[in-house]
Amino acid sequence: METTIVTLLTDFGTADHYVAVVKGVILQRAPQVQIVDISHQVPRHDIPAGAYLLAQVMPYFPAGTIHLAVVDPGVGSDRRLLAGRWGEQIILAPDNGLVSFVHEDYPLQELYEITDPELFLPSPSSTFHGRDQLAPTAAYLVRGGALSSVGPAREQPLILHQARPQHEHRNLVGQILYIDVFGDLVTNLRQEWFEPAARYTVQVGDHPIGPLQRTFTDVSPQALVAYLGSSRRLEVARNQGSAAEYLGAEVGDAIQVLRQD
Amino acid sequence: METTIVTLLTDFGTADHYVAVVKGVILQRAPQVQIVDISHQVPRHDIPAGAYLLAQVMPYFPAGTIHLAVVDPGVGSDRRLLAGRWGEQIILAPDNGLVSFVHEDYPLQELYEITDPELFLPSPSSTFHGRDQLAPTAAYLVRGGALSSVGPAREQPLILHQARPQHEHRNLVGQILYIDVFGDLVTNLRQEWFEPAARYTVQVGDHPIGPLQRTFTDVSPQALVAYLGSSRRLEVARNQGSAAEYLGAEVGDAIQVLRQD
Amino acid sequence: METTIVTLLTDFGTADHYVAVVKGVILQRAPQVQIVDISHQVPRHDIPAGAYLLAQVMPYFPAGTIHLAVVDPGVGSDRRLLAGRWGEQIILAPDNGLVSFVHEDYPLQELYEITDPELFLPSPSSTFHGRDQLAPTAAYLVRGGALSSVGPAREQPLILHQARPQHEHRNLVGQILYIDVFGDLVTNLRQEWFEPAARYTVQVGDHPIGPLQRTFTDVSPQALVAYLGSSRRLEVARNQGSAAEYLGAEVGDAIQVLRQD
Repeated sequence: METTIVTLLTDFGTADHYVAVVKGVILQRAPQVQIVDISHQVPRHDIPAGAYLLAQVMPYFPAGTIHLAVVDPGVGSDRRLLAGRWGEQIILAPDNGLVSFVHEDYPLQELYEITDPELFLPSPSSTFHGRDQLAPTAAYLVRGGALSSVGPAREQPLILHQARPQHEHRNLVGQILYIDVFGDLVTNLRQEWFEPAARYTVQVGDHPIGPLQRTFTDVSPQALVAYLGSSRRLEVARNQGSAAEYLGAEVGDAIQVLRQD
Repeated sequence: METTIVTLLTDFGTADHYVAVVKGVILQRAPQVQIVDISHQVPRHDIPAGAYLLAQVMPYFPAGTIHLAVVDPGVGSDRRLLAGRWGEQIILAPDNGLVSFVHEDYPLQELYEITDPELFLPSPSSTFHGRDQLAPTAAYLVRGGALSSVGPAREQPLILHQARPQHEHRNLVGQILYIDVFGDLVTNLRQEWFEPAARYTVQVGDHPIGPLQRTFTDVSPQALVAYLGSSRRLEVARNQGSAAEYLGAEVGDAIQVLRQD
Repeated sequence: METTIVTLLTDFGTADHYVAVVKGVILQRAPQVQIVDISHQVPRHDIPAGAYLLAQVMPYFPAGTIHLAVVDPGVGSDRRLLAGRWGEQIILAPDNGLVSFVHEDYPLQELYEITDPELFLPSPSSTFHGRDQLAPTAAYLVRGGALSSVGPAREQPLILHQARPQHEHRNLVGQILYIDVFGDLVTNLRQEWFEPAARYTVQVGDHPIGPLQRTFTDVSPQALVAYLGSSRRLEVARNQGSAAEYLGAEVGDAIQVLRQD
């Protein structure tokens, strides 16, 4: 039998037992699985950051991979748990926007709400759905369970407002979605929202960054630069430095793209 | 052949090579093993914290799993290394209290001291028993070696005093055992030490928390609450906040449970 | 088929998606691989630290293991990517000194420059060679591809100056290579550069440490001590404390070994 890959993306951190318990539940029911950690350091309850990371990794994983994503400030409320097919991969996640950017890149298909209590651990808690509901659902799918049997079909996942373009006249307005370990600022402004032949200048808050460049080595060391990066989004970096530190920028800060022609 | 799972729980951190070397030693001798990290961020030399995490994860792992736990301030002294059976799982650990809470939940059986030098790496160091003694013992067991052949039988593991109930008149006195990433305070006061029909109020140091509740959503946001949590112990939390930060609480701080009826 | 082990050593950190993407690329092409993390917390762009960790772990891994190491401040420049055989293991890394200490312990053989574009991801980036070039090369080797087919043969890897002994008269001069989680100072001064019968005293910057001892328990608690450690290098520690904190020592600080006879 092929080994199935299950990935985990959470905001649980790695110090406590929470991630290991999710792994144990999966391995107890589907021992041949290979588990891969995406990240457990998503900033706590930061759904856009989790959504961004998920969209960055999914295209690189093999057919058959099951992704279990838990950034879930609404656990215990009536938000749904979703299971969906994305190409030949599966994603399990709360329906709180976490699949927004993946869905925007390529729409989820065969979307279901996970409701079948027979899938769940006995007497599931109201606060740890990753362990009690998503992990055993993942194991069920690994063992060949049908996606369509986890619960009723759903039409459309919840999509974050950051996933939609916002215009002011001919300009684009957006925000910082994620700051990576290098201090690069990733924004919610997608490559497709820019016209290839147009000229733009970029501004973070009140700070002018300059014209949109092709890549970050188009400017001299220590200079700020805006470009369409490997995230397929507008990014702002400081060549050989940290844009986040230099600008004092934070997630959620406004970014403006001014059309010049 | 089935893949055997070996878990690792240490205070080594993840920056240095120590954890990877332990994994290499196991994989060199038992390549088909699947290694799962529990945590390597146990606070340095904090045996009660390690004991707590171990007890939280073991019930979720499959039969046949081998747990290798190293929080070992006494390495190089004459403390023993133990191998024991816990249900259908195996645990390898120094005999310094690390198995206290697991043993309290369900007694270890077939307890042995690991002494057979033929199991160990050649010329073992006096400071890295995880690599030189426990890792090759784990690999030996994975390959089908008998638990009873690792060394002489032992009667009872060392049990931390935190694992025993302490009473003052009709009240319970305990301490904070662990503070998790959410700032929840986990205490050493076990669920079984509370009488279901009795009424209690809880106090952390001099700070009154209030009556024992059923769950942390029984209080309003930002309020402190004491309840018997998923750890099967008394926990103190702040609804939608960090109790540790709010109270300035630290591991080892005293907690009092006053019987009201 | 045997499972092949691929290890990863990087300075990418574990919060972002970079490590997971490298894993995805390998698993997409070679699903039966077992991936082991060495460390992703090498200090950013710190080649000597990465070189040190690699040399510490490789002797403990099984034949057939493929090590993928990326600490690569020169990515995008004309530095080469290397593939080499080390005993029965393989290493893939930029040619920037990262293999220095491994090579010093036991010379790399069958050294090749990785150049064959057919191995790489389509349209590889200029900034993420770990994902676009090294990961698919690792997968190619896992699937049985020949080391000699990755590109032209090379004679010698780049070796860091820290890997060569430096003498002043009969004394040795070196530097701090790595500070581990315990605050122990690991230096670049190798065991073989010391004469067994000779007497030495050790000094970190202007701070005298004392005579070379056999092990760190040869001094009283809280005392500083210099000894030839498990790294097979001169180490400076504080018994039951942190030498780094006590001395305010940093990577790169000078260390002197004065011959006394």
